[in-house]
Amino acid sequence: MSQKLYEFQKYLEKLNYYRRACTLMSWDLYTAAPKQGYADMADALTWFSTEEFSLSTSDELYEMLTMLSEEEEYNALDEVWKYTVRTMKKDLDERRRVPKDFYASFVAAQSMSMKAWEEAKRASDFSLFAPHLQKMIDMTIQMAAYTHPGKETYDVLLDQYEEGVTAQDIDKVFGELKEGLLPMLRRIISRPVPECRFIGRGYDPDAQKKVQELLLKYIGFNMDAGCTAESEHPFTLGFGSRDVRITNHYHVDNPVNAIFSAIHEGGHGIFDQNTLPEAYGTPAAACSNMGVHESQSRFFENILGRRLSFWKPVYPKIQAILPALADISLEEFVREICHVQPSMIRTEADEVTYPLHVILRYEIEQAIFRDHIPVEQLPELWNQKMKEYLGICPANDAEGILQDMHWSDASFGYFPSYLLGSIYDGMFLETIESELGDLDEILSRGDILKITHWLNEKIHRTGGMEKPKEILARVCGKELTARPLLDYFYQKYVKEGFR
Amino acid sequence: MSQKLYEFQKYLEKLNYYRRACTLMSWDLYTAAPKQGYADMADALTWFSTEEFSLSTSDELYEMLTMLSEEEEYNALDEVWKYTVRTMKKDLDERRRVPKDFYASFVAAQSMSMKAWEEAKRASDFSLFAPHLQKMIDMTIQMAAYTHPGKETYDVLLDQYEEGVTAQDIDKVFGELKEGLLPMLRRIISRPVPECRFIGRGYDPDAQKKVQELLLKYIGFNMDAGCTAESEHPFTLGFGSRDVRITNHYHVDNPVNAIFSAIHEGGHGIFDQNTLPEAYGTPAAACSNMGVHESQSRFFENILGRRLSFWKPVYPKIQAILPALADISLEEFVREICHVQPSMIRTEADEVTYPLHVILRYEIEQAIFRDHIPVEQLPELWNQKMKEYLGICPANDAEGILQDMHWSDASFGYFPSYLLGSIYDGMFLETIESELGDLDEILSRGDILKITHWLNEKIHRTGGMEKPKEILARVCGKELTARPLLDYFYQKYVKEGFR
Repeated sequence: MSQKLYEFQKYLEKLNYYRRACTLMSWDLYTAAPKQGYADMADALTWFSTEEFSLSTSDELYEMLTMLSEEEEYNALDEVWKYTVRTMKKDLDERRRVPKDFYASFVAAQSMSMKAWEEAKRASDFSLFAPHLQKMIDMTIQMAAYTHPGKETYDVLLDQYEEGVTAQDIDKVFGELKEGLLPMLRRIISRPVPECRFIGRGYDPDAQKKVQELLLKYIGFNMDAGCTAESEHPFTLGFGSRDVRITNHYHVDNPVNAIFSAIHEGGHGIFDQNTLPEAYGTPAAACSNMGVHESQSRFFENILGRRLSFWKPVYPKIQAILPALADISLEEFVREICHVQPSMIRTEADEVTYPLHVILRYEIEQAIFRDHIPVEQLPELWNQKMKEYLGICPANDAEGILQDMHWSDASFGYFPSYLLGSIYDGMFLETIESELGDLDEILSRGDILKITHWLNEKIHRTGGMEKPKEILARVCGKELTARPLLDYFYQKYVKEGFR
Repeated sequence: MSQKLYEFQKYLEKLNYYRRACTLMSWDLYTAAPKQGYADMADALTWFSTEEFSLSTSDELYEMLTMLSEEEEYNALDEVWKYTVRTMKKDLDERRRVPKDFYASFVAAQSMSMKAWEEAKRASDFSLFAPHLQKMIDMTIQMAAYTHPGKETYDVLLDQYEEGVTAQDIDKVFGELKEGLLPMLRRIISRPVPECRFIGRGYDPDAQKKVQELLLKYIGFNMDAGCTAESEHPFTLGFGSRDVRITNHYHVDNPVNAIFSAIHEGGHGIFDQNTLPEAYGTPAAACSNMGVHESQSRFFENILGRRLSFWKPVYPKIQAILPALADISLEEFVREICHVQPSMIRTEADEVTYPLHVILRYEIEQAIFRDHIPVEQLPELWNQKMKEYLGICPANDAEGILQDMHWSDASFGYFPSYLLGSIYDGMFLETIESELGDLDEILSRGDILKITHWLNEKIHRTGGMEKPKEILARVCGKELTARPLLDYFYQKYVKEGFR
């Protein structure tokens, strides 16, 4: 190993210690820190984050990366270190193009905007947030001009979250999806609403935790390389493949939320636990493509989890832990978890209406960055599209345009990755069935780990080293298309008759 | 504020961030880190500990402390900062007298000794540990000669854990106690052994957690400034008064262990939550006298918790959470938790036999440091004293001389503080009753917080700023004496007839 690589690895090790401290403090803030100790822990997190930022943007690091990028040095690196040097150098190059003053004012404006959004949402008044949103938009355009001069702003944004996927790609697949989905949805919701008898009964949170543990183990989450805790909102967070942590939130009157959060976060967790072991501690071991990551959580949650055959071997065990489900048949339970109903809030939407929530947001982001429409017109545009796509109209801004926090900190371009995840899932499903055989047969006999291992091998192992389109080409042998997802919806909801 | 004080405070702030990272990582290792992630977290802890050590022993810090110790600067400080400068300077002065090489070899020998003790305990073979123990003894004598030239080694050791308490003091009170206790114990255990019907039934760990929460709140632990978790052994750990954390371990067949661990650790926690708020983040806010700290956990656990009147208002609530106790009367429950039975293991001993376990260890430490007896003779000495004091003899080294880890890392002089805690408790009990009135009356009417607040005001508030003897003089108006503890034992076990 060259002396330069050795020094760089030592530096990265140190950087990782600071990152670990930050991650652990975040974890603690969400899951443990008591009320009176919260501010102290948050202060410490700020302090370590600042140290981490200095280390990750230092001239010393930049020099190391520059030297390691020189042809001879670079060619001597293995794939993991090539990827590491290349991505870290690219990030630093971009960052160094941003004037320090601008960066500082952006961070400050971001935190003010997030605060304003919280207040606006509480008051359900978009006008309180509008000037901040305008500022976030303007600064995002400016930021993209610094980091990627000459490139379309929105493509720069998309690239942050889903490398190599452009607005042109998304226009195509989202268009395809919308066209197929709108008539299908009308057909589905014309059917009578199924009765649901088990929501509103009592479900002990401790028992729900036992259900979560059972499900996590069942789908292949490794409890020796992870743990769980309780937080206000479910999330997954990790220190690399050997320690991946999942949270959940338990509602006494309804076990379905926690069950599907467990499977969803479990999907993220299984991904993180199975990335390339040789790349541990480098960016190559972390998938930075949000859509690809989301595809795995959604594959477990929707493609596998919302399916009768998934529950056949498991449901009796769940009934034993949650006695309030004793008189609810497997079929009744599955009918409820596959129930389609247009609703206002994206994060609570079923799998059929979910894509339309994302398409709406994508189109609004296009209106912002491509058509430059004034922010004042956005609530109207939002409500109009809700009516058009889902047939319902928000009663106020809080359940309409203010519902998501993403725009408040300028995370424009993030939303599409949620839906790209589902679109990839349709493609993965098609491929899995052609390689492993009928999914229902595998699931019915309790052999889900066969599927998990396929995903481990084909998708998780690669970590962050392949771009989304490269993964699709390698795994599915085809280009991005929404057709398989539409086929899946058609088969499940139109032919099998769920609603 | 002087510029020097300001700079020192900034430095301490930074040091505290590193300490917080270390504390949080330790907490995580004990309560959350999964098996495969354990070594990574432990590595990070080592790294941050090393940074913390550099910061806390740096020449820069020493210079600041030296300047702040100069008469004019020092006199301008308030009490908290006087204490902080004085103790940190004293610690650094001592540390700087130790040659770096010796210190490093001591740390290395310590960790080898701890490993050897673990193996020896597993194999129940003292001879495997003996050479390491000898080394720990020799190096401890050498270390004390460096840090406190010309002082008695054992007094130096005692002073680390209980400032100002000497071997002469302890000879006196332990002697007093032994003399009174031995005949009393013979009388108590001559009575028939009470029947216990509830050990061995099933107690759901989740329900035991609810019992713990109820008890912690009941005795005055503030859940807004603390939290709980599960670990192999119960402990208390804190980030200062605003965030104090308690762990517990639950045995399905016996709820008594977790109940009394909760009250014991709760007592430590209540202490830490109530130290001087103005001293937050300084050594003045942390009580470094182990005996004083232990007195508070034991006061809640034994003096209050093992008493019929404590349980009168609480026991029915516990029965409601643990249905297996439904047919166990209050009296039967209390008889069991006050049951006296000589046994081999210190940490499992009842409050009457416990002092004899400590006295035995103290006398052996005296044999080591005062009489220099060879380590080979220690197991025999141990067994002989067990027989003499408790009438039982260990079947092997594991349940005899190897049971505690304290000597393996050279924590000689620590044991006496456990018993000093109980001796202080006797004195505090006497004083409380003279100031607040009959304890049973207060407890019976559920007014325990009156007692907690008294302890907060009289003992906790002072944090680490007073020495044990100063606290006794201020609170009880008398010198250290074991008489009140003996009176308490006599009243409870001889007169009231518990066994």
